[in-house]
Amino acid sequence: MRAARYYDRGDVRIEDIPEPELQPGTVGIDVAWCGICGTDLHEFADGPIFIPPAGHPQPISGESAPITIGHEMSGVVSAVGEGVTDLAVGDHVVVEPYILHDDVDTGPASHDYHLSPDMNFIGLGGHGGGLAEKIVVQQRWVHKVADSVPLDQAALIEPLAVGFHAVARSDASEGDVALITGAGPIGLLTAAICKAQGIEVIISEPSSLRRAKATESGVAAHVLDPTTDDVVARVAELTGGRGADVGFECTSVQPALDTLFDALKPTGVLVVVSIWGHPGSIEMQKLVLKEIDMRGTIAYVNSHPQTIALVESGRIDLSPFITGKIALDDLVTDGYDTLLNRNETAVKILVSPSGAGLG
Amino acid sequence: MRAARYYDRGDVRIEDIPEPELQPGTVGIDVAWCGICGTDLHEFADGPIFIPPAGHPQPISGESAPITIGHEMSGVVSAVGEGVTDLAVGDHVVVEPYILHDDVDTGPASHDYHLSPDMNFIGLGGHGGGLAEKIVVQQRWVHKVADSVPLDQAALIEPLAVGFHAVARSDASEGDVALITGAGPIGLLTAAICKAQGIEVIISEPSSLRRAKATESGVAAHVLDPTTDDVVARVAELTGGRGADVGFECTSVQPALDTLFDALKPTGVLVVVSIWGHPGSIEMQKLVLKEIDMRGTIAYVNSHPQTIALVESGRIDLSPFITGKIALDDLVTDGYDTLLNRNETAVKILVSPSGAGLG
Repeated sequence: MRAARYYDRGDVRIEDIPEPELQPGTVGIDVAWCGICGTDLHEFADGPIFIPPAGHPQPISGESAPITIGHEMSGVVSAVGEGVTDLAVGDHVVVEPYILHDDVDTGPASHDYHLSPDMNFIGLGGHGGGLAEKIVVQQRWVHKVADSVPLDQAALIEPLAVGFHAVARSDASEGDVALITGAGPIGLLTAAICKAQGIEVIISEPSSLRRAKATESGVAAHVLDPTTDDVVARVAELTGGRGADVGFECTSVQPALDTLFDALKPTGVLVVVSIWGHPGSIEMQKLVLKEIDMRGTIAYVNSHPQTIALVESGRIDLSPFITGKIALDDLVTDGYDTLLNRNETAVKILVSPSGAGLG
Repeated sequence: MRAARYYDRGDVRIEDIPEPELQPGTVGIDVAWCGICGTDLHEFADGPIFIPPAGHPQPISGESAPITIGHEMSGVVSAVGEGVTDLAVGDHVVVEPYILHDDVDTGPASHDYHLSPDMNFIGLGGHGGGLAEKIVVQQRWVHKVADSVPLDQAALIEPLAVGFHAVARSDASEGDVALITGAGPIGLLTAAICKAQGIEVIISEPSSLRRAKATESGVAAHVLDPTTDDVVARVAELTGGRGADVGFECTSVQPALDTLFDALKPTGVLVVVSIWGHPGSIEMQKLVLKEIDMRGTIAYVNSHPQTIALVESGRIDLSPFITGKIALDDLVTDGYDTLLNRNETAVKILVSPSGAGLG
C-alpha cells in the first residue's frame, strides 16, 4: 500500500509498504482522510521531535525512522480482530492516536493517561499512520462516528478534541465569555467548541485573512485586530467592565499572553494551548493580585466521545475549516509547502491516501 | 489613646490620638496583640504602597497619611453598637481587616470580595489599626474566637488565614504531598494549615535558622536545603517517583519557581503565595506538557471561620511562631529593625499597644 514515511528533517517519502496485519483486539481501517497537523510541519521543518530518529527506537512501539506519519484520520472499518466488540465492518470511525504503556489506566475516569511516561502518538511514534491507505489500531483508540458526519469532516475530530480538552481545562460554562488569542486551526476549533457549549467567543488575531475566516465560520461573536484595537479595553466594554471569564492562548507569542492577563476578570482562567519554544514572561503580581489560574493543556484525555457527540448533534459545522484536499503524492508540495509558506489562507488540508474523494 | 501612625516611608510615629467612636453596626475592641506583617515592613522600607499618601485619600475610607497601622490583631470586645448581634462585651475576637465598597457581596458564598475594586485593608488604607489601644470595626469583619485560644496566638489567625486560603486555592486534600519553597512566616503558616488538613509537607529553605524553625515547629515532614540537596530528586524519592501533588511558592525568587515546575507531578497545582516585585520566567512547555495549574492567591475570602475552627480544635499550635513580644514604643527599634535586618531568627513579633501582657 502507499504510505507517507518520515525519514528525517525535510525528508518525507511516499512509498509502497506492506499492509499492516490484523491482530486480536485490533481494528482494520481503510483511511478516508488524514489532516496535516502543525506538529507534522514542525517535524518536517525542525524535527525529529516526537518521531524517534533512526537507531533510537520509541520505548513503547520499538520503532524508529522511517516512520509512517499522519494522526488526524477518519476511515471505514475493513476488518475486526478477535475479541473486538461494538465495532463492525463498514462503521465510520476516527482514531484517538495514543501510544501508551500497557499498564496505564485508560479507563473512562482517567484524567491523565495522556501525561503518562513515554507517551507518544500513532503517526509520529510508530503503530502506523493515517497518511497510508490502511491502518490497524487497538480497539481502545478507535471511536465510531455516525454515518451522518461526512468522513472529510470526521478527520477534523482529532484537532477538535484538542479544543474540547482545552475548554474542559478552563472550567468555562454556558454564558461565560472567552477571549481567544490567535485564529489558526487550534484557535478556530477551540472557538467552535466554545460556541457549541454556549460560551461567547472574542477572537484577537492580527492577520486579516485569519480574521475573515473567524468571522465567516461564525464561531466568534467578536473579532478584534490587536494591531489597531485596544483589545483589553474592547473586552472590558463587551463584558460590562468585568473582563473575560476565560482566555485561550493559541499563538505562542508574548504580547498575546500579556493581553490575556490584562483582559481576564479577577479569578479568570488562562489556558495555554499553544506549544511555546521559548520561556514566557509572567507578571507575577497580576497572577497573584487577580488570582488568575494559568493552566497548561495538551492533546485530549477521554475527550473523543463528547467531541464526537457535539459534531453528531450538528452544533459544530467543520466544513468551513477544510480549505484543501490533496492526493498523497502531493503531500509535500501542495500540503506542507502551502501550510509552511502560505498558511494564512489555509486552515486544514486533508489528504486522501487512496485518492478516493478527490475531484 | 496611643497609636502607631504611618506618615511616610521610614516615618512611623507613636502618638496620642482620640479614641474611635462606636457607631451602629460596629464593635469596639480593646486590642490585645497586633503582629508585624511583611507588608508593614514593605510600607516602612519602600512604601507607601497600600497606604494612601498624604493628599491622596483612599477611595473608600477617604483617609490618607498619617494612617494608624497594624492589621494582624486580636482583642476583647469592649462595646457593641446598635444592631450588633452574636457578639457581646468580653468576647475574644480577631479582625478580618477589609475595606470594601458597600455594594460588594460579602456573603458566605462569595469567593471574590477580596478582589473587588479599590479593596484595601484596615490598618493600611484607613479605618483605624491594630497598633493602637482601641479600634472600632464593622461587625461583618469581627470574628469570635473561643476563650481557649490564647490572645497572643489569636493575633496570628490573620496570617494563618492567608495560608488557609492558599491551601484552599490548591485544591489539595488529605494524603496529598505539598512542596513549599520558603520557610518565612507565610511558608510556615501555610505548612501548618497543610499539616492540620492531613497534607504531608516538604519544605525547601536555604537558611539554616529557618530550616531549624520548620523542623522544631513540627509542621514539615521533610526539610530540604536547596543549596546542598537535589530538591527535585528528593521530592521524587519521597513520593515514589510521582512528584509533589501541589506546590506553594513563598519566596519570590526564580530558582524556587523553576524547582516547583520540575518537582510537581503531571496535573500538579502550583500556588504562588509570595508577592513578586519582578516578572517570573516560565518554561511554558512544562506548563503545557505536564498540564500544570499555576494559581495566584492573595489574602483570604470567607477563610476566617474555618481557620479559627482549626486553631480552636487544637490541630494547629501557633506558639512556636511567636518569636518576640514588644511594647508599642519599641515598634520601630525592636520590631521593624529586627525583622528587616535580623529576620532569619524571627517569625512573628507581636506588639502590645497597651503594654499589658509584657513581662
